Amino acid sequence: MPLRHFLTTQDYSRAEIDALLAQAAAFKRSPRGQQLAGKSVALLFFNPSMRTRTSFELGAFHLGGHAIVLSPGKDAWPIEFRPNVVMDGEAEEHIAEVARVLSRYVDLIAVRAFPKFQDWSVDREDAVIKAFAQHASVPVINMETITHPCQELAHALALKERFGDLGGRKYVLTWTYHPKPLNTAVANSALLIATKMGMDVTLLCPTPDYVLDERYMAFGAQNARENGGSLKVSHDIEDAYRGADVVYAKSWGALPFFGRWEAEQPIRDAHRHFIVDEAKMALTNHGVFSHCLPLRRNIKATDAVMDSPACIAIDEAENRLHVQKAVMASLLAQH
Amino acid sequence: MPLRHFLTTQDYSRAEIDALLAQAAAFKRSPRGQQLAGKSVALLFFNPSMRTRTSFELGAFHLGGHAIVLSPGKDAWPIEFRPNVVMDGEAEEHIAEVARVLSRYVDLIAVRAFPKFQDWSVDREDAVIKAFAQHASVPVINMETITHPCQELAHALALKERFGDLGGRKYVLTWTYHPKPLNTAVANSALLIATKMGMDVTLLCPTPDYVLDERYMAFGAQNARENGGSLKVSHDIEDAYRGADVVYAKSWGALPFFGRWEAEQPIRDAHRHFIVDEAKMALTNHGVFSHCLPLRRNIKATDAVMDSPACIAIDEAENRLHVQKAVMASLLAQH
Amino acid sequence: MPLRHFLTTQDYSRAEIDALLAQAAAFKRSPRGQQLAGKSVALLFFNPSMRTRTSFELGAFHLGGHAIVLSPGKDAWPIEFRPNVVMDGEAEEHIAEVARVLSRYVDLIAVRAFPKFQDWSVDREDAVIKAFAQHASVPVINMETITHPCQELAHALALKERFGDLGGRKYVLTWTYHPKPLNTAVANSALLIATKMGMDVTLLCPTPDYVLDERYMAFGAQNARENGGSLKVSHDIEDAYRGADVVYAKSWGALPFFGRWEAEQPIRDAHRHFIVDEAKMALTNHGVFSHCLPLRRNIKATDAVMDSPACIAIDEAENRLHVQKAVMASLLAQH
Repeated sequence: MPLRHFLTTQDYSRAEIDALLAQAAAFKRSPRGQQLAGKSVALLFFNPSMRTRTSFELGAFHLGGHAIVLSPGKDAWPIEFRPNVVMDGEAEEHIAEVARVLSRYVDLIAVRAFPKFQDWSVDREDAVIKAFAQHASVPVINMETITHPCQELAHALALKERFGDLGGRKYVLTWTYHPKPLNTAVANSALLIATKMGMDVTLLCPTPDYVLDERYMAFGAQNARENGGSLKVSHDIEDAYRGADVVYAKSWGALPFFGRWEAEQPIRDAHRHFIVDEAKMALTNHGVFSHCLPLRRNIKATDAVMDSPACIAIDEAENRLHVQKAVMASLLAQH
Repeated sequence: MPLRHFLTTQDYSRAEIDALLAQAAAFKRSPRGQQLAGKSVALLFFNPSMRTRTSFELGAFHLGGHAIVLSPGKDAWPIEFRPNVVMDGEAEEHIAEVARVLSRYVDLIAVRAFPKFQDWSVDREDAVIKAFAQHASVPVINMETITHPCQELAHALALKERFGDLGGRKYVLTWTYHPKPLNTAVANSALLIATKMGMDVTLLCPTPDYVLDERYMAFGAQNARENGGSLKVSHDIEDAYRGADVVYAKSWGALPFFGRWEAEQPIRDAHRHFIVDEAKMALTNHGVFSHCLPLRRNIKATDAVMDSPACIAIDEAENRLHVQKAVMASLLAQH
Repeated sequence: MPLRHFLTTQDYSRAEIDALLAQAAAFKRSPRGQQLAGKSVALLFFNPSMRTRTSFELGAFHLGGHAIVLSPGKDAWPIEFRPNVVMDGEAEEHIAEVARVLSRYVDLIAVRAFPKFQDWSVDREDAVIKAFAQHASVPVINMETITHPCQELAHALALKERFGDLGGRKYVLTWTYHPKPLNTAVANSALLIATKMGMDVTLLCPTPDYVLDERYMAFGAQNARENGGSLKVSHDIEDAYRGADVVYAKSWGALPFFGRWEAEQPIRDAHRHFIVDEAKMALTNHGVFSHCLPLRRNIKATDAVMDSPACIAIDEAENRLHVQKAVMASLLAQH
């Protein structure tokens, strides 16, 4: 049996996703267990983290295991990912050795590796986590690269807690302003999971330049077909919000401007009004609001929305703990 | 019942402090337990730490729990603490979300947040830890802000180990030279706990500019009244040391010079002779010496004093472990 | 009984080394235990680490203990190591206090402290770890200073796994090129352990300037005499490789050029051909290849060698976990 990783929810069937969510809900009711007794997980952070690190570290502890937190290039050696290169640059070690050695030490390897943000054609290859998956002999978990599948599960669980079955719910993924261009990982992920759960999904963004990568648009359309939902793009705020059950907000940089962000700045600056506020939420069908966090208040969403009963962002953040325990336990059980 | 935090010993009665010290002494005799079994504590360090981090992390382990070490702004996101602001600066996340999410993950939140040292009128508000206490739904522990209550308990326990009852003991808190201006947290704390234990306390410092904030002077005077001790200020080294049972040293910057430390430098430089040395200790009543550590040898105290049997700084440092276990166990038991 | 540390394998008899290796092999077969139940080890990293930190942290976990990772000068205070100095520089704390306080908290102290690389006559004193051993009241473990004894044990175990008894095996320690001058710790250690295991050891290096410090050359010669092996120096690649059972590669800076590395650069650059490649390995007696990692591929060894069955570097890295558990358990049992 080939080694199973958790790199993207697209590698998992709807039934498998539902099973992970059911396991996560069970962990939420009963947090302790021995599913990772004596086991360990390496958490490799190429980028900073608060929630992800805390929830994985605690999740391992709750199940009898232990997490090792590593920050390559900061408190560990910089790593080379390209094959067959003469390593005369900064990197002191090749991913082949890193992944093989870690596989001897730990039972799971989790990786956060954000895009470099210079060239989307490079970033979209997701080379770092793919190299880990290629060289590791233990399961690899995506802690956010160009998608964020753990966030997807946490989001889906929070929505199911509010709505039960999600099929046919009206879901809006809205772009919001942020002073810096951000990566598209959570936006891609929102598309994937919302369509997978059979919702009617609208991607709301300022201009066609903000539409997501064709890979994720195609996955979304495929998921919608297979799960009885739909996917469309809108640039009309009022139309998108009207009657929505779910508003999910995220900021991201427009892909055509990758690597020359100063040219995108005026466009973003002109769309600060995409902020999620009470007036927009009033257009929804008593809809809920969420965001993956961290969130800049009064930039992406107003204080009033964040502090309203409609906001389920804290539930979603809590669910990271539960779904990641389900993912770790599931991978180890298969392993 | 409102949530109980451990922000300052002033929120705790003398009887409650005595109970914490008794519990700490019990943990010193018998270090292992299950008081934190399956529980977790987040340790947020906005400033570096060696002893505090080690002792909290070990304390949780000894009692069956797990500590998560976070360094916001370094390996986690920078945090906004002001309410109702448009977050278009550096901070990516608001304390409201940080505290709420952490409260979902962990059972205790401990915070180290030193003063910014630009404006004492700002620092004295202690905004960071108060914001955590306001937004968290689990107990918050002060790991040093503008006071250092865990150090207070460790100090008191070390003194009780030498003297038994502390009532009526002559206690000198002496300012010492240090090449940089330091914050007043431990000095404030020494005043609070020494007066709370009913000792006759002398604050020895070079000039009236080095007297501590009126809030802590007032708390000290109130504690002295309530516990049968006294509090006075002296600028006379010989008079202060004569007959002392306890000499506690600390350096701090003079409050009137906050934010313009170059103006204070000549005054500090002129008082290098406040160093604790054998000649001064010879004036005491076979007194003990302590310091919170880290201590610059031969700047704050001589090698001879540090290596003498009178020095109980290592005992005090050890006691951090025991008192913090008492604080954590006590907060969880109440919670 | 005086406190026993693990600072260098030269402090351990051949029988003691063999016992540690046997214990490590037992841990490899059966990884879990309670030898460190409730115990803790402080891991002090003055320099970065991936393997060492992960393997020590996991080793403690596997045996019921807990590792505390500290990085002095980064997330802890800078430390003064010289005795009797007026501490008016950068250091906020003296090793006397650091070691004494840590000894109150933890059961073992492990230290990584690389040479400063300015003056070998200073570095060869190994002052940092010696100061820890002097002031600590618990056993101190060397995680790499000017030798790397844990790597030695891991290396010896990997070789024994391939060869059984190592006596009389032909062992080549070959210098290799690296764009930066590196320290001699692992090279010194390879000499120590290879001679201690009774092998016929050749130190292969470009010029006499690359011969290792006389202390380690003398220890090697003494070990060879006592254990039935030999030690010689060669500058002839073909002669050294011919018939070898083991090729161990490492780069290091030539000691006479310490602190003026720009003068050594042309010499190193002229010896890039010391890279371990298939042609050289073909000269051996079906020999194995190893390296301590991290290794720059196609600089120190080619992809072909690294990915060949002859390469046991990953086994050696794995063995770090097992031998360190043996060292920790052994020191605690003696303690």
